[in-house]
Amino acid sequence: MKNTSRRKFLKASALAGVGTTIATGAVAASTAAAPKKELFVHHVYFYLKNAGSAADKAKLMEGLEKLSKVPTIRMVHIGTPATTNRDVIERGYSISWLCLFDNLEEQEVYQKHPIHLKFVDDYSHLWEKVIVYDSVGPKRA
Amino acid sequence: MKNTSRRKFLKASALAGVGTTIATGAVAASTAAAPKKELFVHHVYFYLKNAGSAADKAKLMEGLEKLSKVPTIRMVHIGTPATTNRDVIERGYSISWLCLFDNLEEQEVYQKHPIHLKFVDDYSHLWEKVIVYDSVGPKRA
Repeated sequence: MKNTSRRKFLKASALAGVGTTIATGAVAASTAAAPKKELFVHHVYFYLKNAGSAADKAKLMEGLEKLSKVPTIRMVHIGTPATTNRDVIERGYSISWLCLFDNLEEQEVYQKHPIHLKFVDDYSHLWEKVIVYDSVGPKRA
Repeated sequence: MKNTSRRKFLKASALAGVGTTIATGAVAASTAAAPKKELFVHHVYFYLKNAGSAADKAKLMEGLEKLSKVPTIRMVHIGTPATTNRDVIERGYSISWLCLFDNLEEQEVYQKHPIHLKFVDDYSHLWEKVIVYDSVGPKRA
């Protein structure tokens, strides 16, 4: 390969992300024996004391926005019950708080994090109960 | 800017992803009036008839692997209860099935999809009950 051709190839590779792909492939091959990556799913359903209060709901949403800053959280979703309404669907909660963590340990860091402790202090008067589902399973591509 | 300087700038921008950022910014500005993207979270907890049966659990896992092929599913996670064990944590289910969809309509396509109907036909004898939580909220970056 002439020097200019090689330079062109390198440029094209960088632009297309080809260099990145090769590097990732090499890493994957060298860690083939490592255990599969897990994902820790932490799902909390909040039942407000005043379920009909838009103000209380907005207040809790505000608190959850602050809570979402805990650094070990990989992905977060704040939701409210969808319009779907079959017998098997639970719709009595006011807010759904879904958090994904890399593993149990990262979730425990979240539980003890000052932002989380302050969230409980500042907002727990709003809810009557919470139901939590923690589940673990392989991370998918 | 001289022609050579400009060429260097364009190359550096492309490599650093600056060009991409500018393009994204332009798209965002032109669609500022469009509604925010939503995410539909469908979370199902399966309670097996024979909760102690590893075979039944494996069988349902097999069924869920098939179910995960429904094309409107954006992300899926199959889990089992974590080791966390506080009062507020529900641990009686055998398998957690978490699915993310772009919106309600995509979730409805999933509900009616032949793969889903066949899953219910083939595997529903395994569970005693399911609890479903459907929630919607803004999609985050």
